[in-house]
Amino acid sequence: MCMDYMKESLRKHYEWKGKLEVTARVKADSREALSLAYTPGVAAPCLEIAKDPSLAYALTRKWNTVAVVTDGSAVLGLGNIGALAGMPVMEGKCVLFREFAGVDAVPVCLATQDTEEIIATVKNIAPSYGGINLEDISAPRCFEIERRLKAECDIPVFHDDQHGTAIVLAAALENALKVVGKQLSTARLVINGAGSAGIAIAEFLLDMGAGDLVVCDRAGILSEDAEKFNPAQAALAAKTNPRGVTGTLGDAVKGADVFIGVSAKGALSEDMVRSMARDAVVFAMANPAPEIEPDAAKRAGARIVATGRSDHPNQINNVLAFPGIFRGALDARARDINAEMQIAAVHALAGLVSDDERGEECILPLAFDPRVAPAVAAAVKDAAVKSGVARL
Amino acid sequence: MCMDYMKESLRKHYEWKGKLEVTARVKADSREALSLAYTPGVAAPCLEIAKDPSLAYALTRKWNTVAVVTDGSAVLGLGNIGALAGMPVMEGKCVLFREFAGVDAVPVCLATQDTEEIIATVKNIAPSYGGINLEDISAPRCFEIERRLKAECDIPVFHDDQHGTAIVLAAALENALKVVGKQLSTARLVINGAGSAGIAIAEFLLDMGAGDLVVCDRAGILSEDAEKFNPAQAALAAKTNPRGVTGTLGDAVKGADVFIGVSAKGALSEDMVRSMARDAVVFAMANPAPEIEPDAAKRAGARIVATGRSDHPNQINNVLAFPGIFRGALDARARDINAEMQIAAVHALAGLVSDDERGEECILPLAFDPRVAPAVAAAVKDAAVKSGVARL
Repeated sequence: MCMDYMKESLRKHYEWKGKLEVTARVKADSREALSLAYTPGVAAPCLEIAKDPSLAYALTRKWNTVAVVTDGSAVLGLGNIGALAGMPVMEGKCVLFREFAGVDAVPVCLATQDTEEIIATVKNIAPSYGGINLEDISAPRCFEIERRLKAECDIPVFHDDQHGTAIVLAAALENALKVVGKQLSTARLVINGAGSAGIAIAEFLLDMGAGDLVVCDRAGILSEDAEKFNPAQAALAAKTNPRGVTGTLGDAVKGADVFIGVSAKGALSEDMVRSMARDAVVFAMANPAPEIEPDAAKRAGARIVATGRSDHPNQINNVLAFPGIFRGALDARARDINAEMQIAAVHALAGLVSDDERGEECILPLAFDPRVAPAVAAAVKDAAVKSGVARL
Repeated sequence: MCMDYMKESLRKHYEWKGKLEVTARVKADSREALSLAYTPGVAAPCLEIAKDPSLAYALTRKWNTVAVVTDGSAVLGLGNIGALAGMPVMEGKCVLFREFAGVDAVPVCLATQDTEEIIATVKNIAPSYGGINLEDISAPRCFEIERRLKAECDIPVFHDDQHGTAIVLAAALENALKVVGKQLSTARLVINGAGSAGIAIAEFLLDMGAGDLVVCDRAGILSEDAEKFNPAQAALAAKTNPRGVTGTLGDAVKGADVFIGVSAKGALSEDMVRSMARDAVVFAMANPAPEIEPDAAKRAGARIVATGRSDHPNQINNVLAFPGIFRGALDARARDINAEMQIAAVHALAGLVSDDERGEECILPLAFDPRVAPAVAAAVKDAAVKSGVARL
């Protein structure tokens, strides 16, 4: 099925000749119209913004515009194919921003993969936008790029591959733990895959109160061994694994309540699932093929299984988060998308599944549920105001 | 009248909340649609572009997208008000690109006014676009910025304040000289104002065959005196003024056939016009108020008068050039907008005034003449192909 989508998608892309269009909201069909939208009248809004820069949010499209920025170093599962080749993904992302949350999003594909150059470039183009969505930038560079841009820009900077995934996963986890009657503070959680998404998920779950988290990568359970792990992974090792488990993923998952995979096809065996605690929860999010097939995981005793795939129940799909998060941040004219706003998004998303609906095959709203983006946006805007990063 | 436009324009800008919108050309309303426009199908066009980067023109919106880039250092007649304050102008320019030539144009307002940083930034964001329109960047930095970007980018880079103005002026001059029966190679031409537009006009008229050109700035007729003139002005001095005239604008215009003003209100007196040759042509393009009022110039003996104003005949308006020029360059997937393409635009524009129509009050087509952009685009595309910069 995936191959059929590939063929048909290529055909469609040739037909579409681009998935976005920039349209005019004003007329330019008479001297009068031109004199208002352009010279000489346009001098008036320019002078207003020169006096008070915050008026750019009222007098230009800044209030509704997000740049989707990539260097093409980690595009989908395709790896480092370069920014130009990543453009169809960025255009697709911009389509989702528009269709799910009414955001004007534009792709910015960078001709550099140098960390300092990326930071300088994004900082320099930031004034035109109300937010920056970083996309498909490889780890560990993405951490430094995001950290620095968050500090140096006065608009929100959000690396969706990290935080979007973490937010949706956390919402799914919130509901899954309710279903199995366990607590985040005491459940044994294992993350497999310590790339950008895995590290972001770990940091976020710690923020949310996870008490027993073990993180693995190809070289095994994270430790501070600099030969086996990069600095971001070593830093995470110091904050996780309170019981001091050593070894491989197989050792980590023994007795675990929750497996969270952002790794690769086949990483989790049926034997591993059998070694987990009762009522095990398996989030197998590798794309396009999960760490373990849902049927196999269920057979091995998992009670709840979620994947990134749309053809199974419980799809962990970033589209549940980023449109509403940016909508809320833009509506607040926020300076940042901070932890408070992200946690608000988790609860808003999880809360859309009612007590009656919640169950083994229903831990998240569906991707096309029209309540999602408005609910997330409202919670995020509110959290922005309460945490002091709104400019209203 | 101008003040009325200012007031009404400000009111309208508050109502519009931005003059552009990014819309989706594809649906994202079902799993099926998402699988084609986004994951997993989108991997297919990505891989095609990774194999053959030129396919970005067929599979993404690159073929139709132009970035309108400013650092806000010379916005309209307002001076250095900064990039954010320049945004209403950039949005307006993007509206004109869309409405006159169907181009998807996006504003990019830079947080830096450092020449090297601007060059690096624009180079780094170039892959997303089919062309770069530099706008409202002050002289002399604009020359170095444009020269370097033209050399280092594989898409057209065009500073409209320089070349757009030069092209429309040259078309107006072509027809004006026909009306008065003079030749570009022998007519005495004077340019007043050696900023970005004045220098670009001078260089362009030399390219087109002007034989007797004298350029003035506030400090008088350009010379190689480094205390009075910047390097760009000194370089131009060496290529102009074949009769070695010295002194001020008053000295330069004595006996001149054509005055070209890109300077300031009141720079040309009636006495100066009286000192010009018979059938004098006066292009008084200062904005918003011209170097001399058209009535005064006529009274003093000028036979043809043109200004930048829409409420007089013979308006020199950049909108006659840039939409068609970029349309033609995009249609050719051009690497550059070279001299051949610019000269082709001049002749196409001038040629839209028929022999019957041409006269003292008709040396250019009207700004809203629907034939303009297509005619300019066709000529520019053709010249791109013939001069070897097209990629078709």
